[in-house]
Amino acid sequence: MPNSAHPNNPAKANPGNFFEDFRLGQEIRHATPRTVTAGDAALHIGLTGSRFALHSSDEFARTLGFERAPIDDLLVFNMVFGKTVPDVSLNAIANLGYANGRFGAPVYAGDTLSTRSTVIGLKENSSGDTGVVYVHSIGTNQRGAVVLDYVRWVMVRKRDRNTPPPEAVVPTLPARVSAAELAIPERLDLAAYDVGAAGSPHRWGDYQAGERIDHGDGMTIEESCHMIATRLYQNTARVHFNQHQEKGGRFGRRIVYGGHVISLARALSFNGLGNAFRVAAINGGRHVAPSFAGDTIYAWSEVKEKVALAERADVGALHLRTVATKDQPGAEFPDVGPEGKPHPAVVLDLDYWVLMPR
Amino acid sequence: MPNSAHPNNPAKANPGNFFEDFRLGQEIRHATPRTVTAGDAALHIGLTGSRFALHSSDEFARTLGFERAPIDDLLVFNMVFGKTVPDVSLNAIANLGYANGRFGAPVYAGDTLSTRSTVIGLKENSSGDTGVVYVHSIGTNQRGAVVLDYVRWVMVRKRDRNTPPPEAVVPTLPARVSAAELAIPERLDLAAYDVGAAGSPHRWGDYQAGERIDHGDGMTIEESCHMIATRLYQNTARVHFNQHQEKGGRFGRRIVYGGHVISLARALSFNGLGNAFRVAAINGGRHVAPSFAGDTIYAWSEVKEKVALAERADVGALHLRTVATKDQPGAEFPDVGPEGKPHPAVVLDLDYWVLMPR
Amino acid sequence: MPNSAHPNNPAKANPGNFFEDFRLGQEIRHATPRTVTAGDAALHIGLTGSRFALHSSDEFARTLGFERAPIDDLLVFNMVFGKTVPDVSLNAIANLGYANGRFGAPVYAGDTLSTRSTVIGLKENSSGDTGVVYVHSIGTNQRGAVVLDYVRWVMVRKRDRNTPPPEAVVPTLPARVSAAELAIPERLDLAAYDVGAAGSPHRWGDYQAGERIDHGDGMTIEESCHMIATRLYQNTARVHFNQHQEKGGRFGRRIVYGGHVISLARALSFNGLGNAFRVAAINGGRHVAPSFAGDTIYAWSEVKEKVALAERADVGALHLRTVATKDQPGAEFPDVGPEGKPHPAVVLDLDYWVLMPR
Repeated sequence: MPNSAHPNNPAKANPGNFFEDFRLGQEIRHATPRTVTAGDAALHIGLTGSRFALHSSDEFARTLGFERAPIDDLLVFNMVFGKTVPDVSLNAIANLGYANGRFGAPVYAGDTLSTRSTVIGLKENSSGDTGVVYVHSIGTNQRGAVVLDYVRWVMVRKRDRNTPPPEAVVPTLPARVSAAELAIPERLDLAAYDVGAAGSPHRWGDYQAGERIDHGDGMTIEESCHMIATRLYQNTARVHFNQHQEKGGRFGRRIVYGGHVISLARALSFNGLGNAFRVAAINGGRHVAPSFAGDTIYAWSEVKEKVALAERADVGALHLRTVATKDQPGAEFPDVGPEGKPHPAVVLDLDYWVLMPR
Repeated sequence: MPNSAHPNNPAKANPGNFFEDFRLGQEIRHATPRTVTAGDAALHIGLTGSRFALHSSDEFARTLGFERAPIDDLLVFNMVFGKTVPDVSLNAIANLGYANGRFGAPVYAGDTLSTRSTVIGLKENSSGDTGVVYVHSIGTNQRGAVVLDYVRWVMVRKRDRNTPPPEAVVPTLPARVSAAELAIPERLDLAAYDVGAAGSPHRWGDYQAGERIDHGDGMTIEESCHMIATRLYQNTARVHFNQHQEKGGRFGRRIVYGGHVISLARALSFNGLGNAFRVAAINGGRHVAPSFAGDTIYAWSEVKEKVALAERADVGALHLRTVATKDQPGAEFPDVGPEGKPHPAVVLDLDYWVLMPR
Repeated sequence: MPNSAHPNNPAKANPGNFFEDFRLGQEIRHATPRTVTAGDAALHIGLTGSRFALHSSDEFARTLGFERAPIDDLLVFNMVFGKTVPDVSLNAIANLGYANGRFGAPVYAGDTLSTRSTVIGLKENSSGDTGVVYVHSIGTNQRGAVVLDYVRWVMVRKRDRNTPPPEAVVPTLPARVSAAELAIPERLDLAAYDVGAAGSPHRWGDYQAGERIDHGDGMTIEESCHMIATRLYQNTARVHFNQHQEKGGRFGRRIVYGGHVISLARALSFNGLGNAFRVAAINGGRHVAPSFAGDTIYAWSEVKEKVALAERADVGALHLRTVATKDQPGAEFPDVGPEGKPHPAVVLDLDYWVLMPR
């Protein structure tokens, strides 16, 4: 039975795009501009327990040169990302990776975020029934200022395995954003940065490349919590919400949206990285394994690089890797093994830059 | 043991009204004026996943002539309704129906909503231990402007089955609000309506009477989600919250508040009705069967009428029926059958008007 | 394996303080100043179902002389308390009691709360592996005005049972805050107090010392609900969040944060104490037994004293005890027994002052 009873009317519900629907260079303007509010910020804290002072306190934010508390970077990421789902990944099997993600203008409650994307790569898989789509997505505020700019690639189903494959184009992506490209928020001045209020004595100078930090705490995921988060981002991927369908699916249950795991890992990282007040870039990220309700997420981090920033005596950058695990504390730093085989508990491997007071 | 240890003091806790406590023409001013905030709006999105652009974006709302994003119509409905529960339906067995619901002035964050009701019908049931109460409820903002006006009827327990029945009065209710009565928000102008931002290409002209739309997605209800929603509306009906009592009750578990199912059905309807930016009226609604945590709600809609509005070239009205089901996709349009017997999966049958850009 | 791979760098994650780390007179400035928002207020209603009109409506609040709806007193309590956890109770076994809690300046959305504490008592337990720490905590707004001031004592683990005990100092604490010390909000004027809007006809004069009130309703706790609440307060005590660890712990599951139970008890108390618009003081409180997800919380209250306030004809104070139980309705007033042995259903015994219109 067709979606519409009137054969002269097209089906009204969005079936999502299949691999064949994407074309290199295609520009997609995603729907649902979203005014981010203090309500969204409160829910993000309620769902993750994040404690970074910059996002918690207007007063603290003003001492650093912000108008007031900017919206948490990961909440911005998830809001910008969510808009792309109905167009890019409704028929996706897996979100394969991220690259070259750069945060731009701070977002404040009252700002309205929109996202547009360009298809920058396409490659059919050898199986013939799926392909990889690379999109460059740009999130902007109501003044057109870029708030986040990133590439992600996803494995998308073909509608028909007999459709001939497009010419394979795989974009060249930087292994990491260079420190010189990191956006320093306008008027940022850390002279008055108060480590006591922030909750950690450790400044940029206290970290060293190679250092590993076990963030200690664990956070158990409930179905309600990940669904509220994912709905808040207006992310419509069905696997997160529909137990009736998923009980017969690959895992027999709903899959937790990977962006919620990123938000949890960032929130957990407060304990050891409490002065990492700003996520400046996401160099890469891999959802190594799915997470489900009942899993307890732990995290540990490694300092990969420590970079001073040109003409800034007050702020430095750390290049971090944060690894999130499920039902496995971070104390022994479970990791991707020497042959690239990950420890079975690893669910997320996130590579990113943070800013810290010197 | 009485509620109060002092026999000369009346019991302080509200036992709710029983059928005998209602009188025809009785006016009830409900308690708890409520300032609706951006926090309520964020929670409503987090609990339903609603994506209508008008309620998501101040910028989008301004292009249509609104001050900023108005509060979701169903959030308004649930807030106005919630206030009536302690007086009308604390001892109700079933919420039987709605009629003649008309939305009025848009509600903005910061507005304070109040509700008052008039008893317009009473009829004891033949069993002798319950009766039906009809109330006309009016929700207003702090300036006294009507934001929602509707009739509902509920089956309420008698305190004592020996109380003689009142004269039966059943109000005459319209089968539907007439299109001419639909309130068009002041200063509404859809000339600049952006279907790309709204997320659906289908305008009023693309729908036809008789057309059916399967909304595709399914949303599983969790105990936390429906309880947070229902508490947010300050709806105090005990069956939604108290597992200790309900485990020995009719169903052995908590019942999901029907208004949460309405909100979910409306949110699901976005996929196929994305430009139905405003619910203008609720003609009728029936909670055909109860929903419980664990149920996955699906929805499909039927266009019953398509009406142009006087002197408006920019906006038209659709008279819709949205049917919500549990654990049954909408693809085959499960419905009330020819003898009026509903498909066992149907939980909600909602009849309403929406506004759409032409 | 140490927390940090660089032996010359201290561990970055906060291990929390042990009993030996506290010193009499020590002043602790707690981290994470927090701007309380309308989002926090909406979540607190969504998680507790609180219906007090003062906190629900800007309009109602203005009729009493407030700028607009102040933040719920228990939300303030939990926000102020949450900040103390990383420093005071991360290694606590039990939160033993509260005393001398006085609410001060009303808190409005947009205010930023901070907390500082002084250690006012220390006493090692005879077991030798734990001790009791007494802290006096002060919550202030961004102008330095005190919003809440209270003492709590907790049982904290020793790092090493061989550390010699400190000199035992147990502070003298008042059995209750005296009525003369209760802060009356500036410009408060109850001449226009509207009991109809508030939802209860019972004014201060209608209550009598010795009166007991069964609040009737029960609220079942879900894991998501208590975790969202506790994360919202940025309370980091691990027992509330980590099922992977707790499944091998004392109870085999996560423990509900006691402050959430207090918020629930206060919300339940609306039914019978609807005009108790302000919690003015917390005289004492005992978490008699832990609560867990699945428990249904009921509450009953006893009026201990009824006190007129100097030079105020419009407002009076009630000294209350509210007892919360699990899976046991309040109808028979389950209580601490004659030998001090509590009824097995009792989870909370809270002693406090409220203000009410005369």
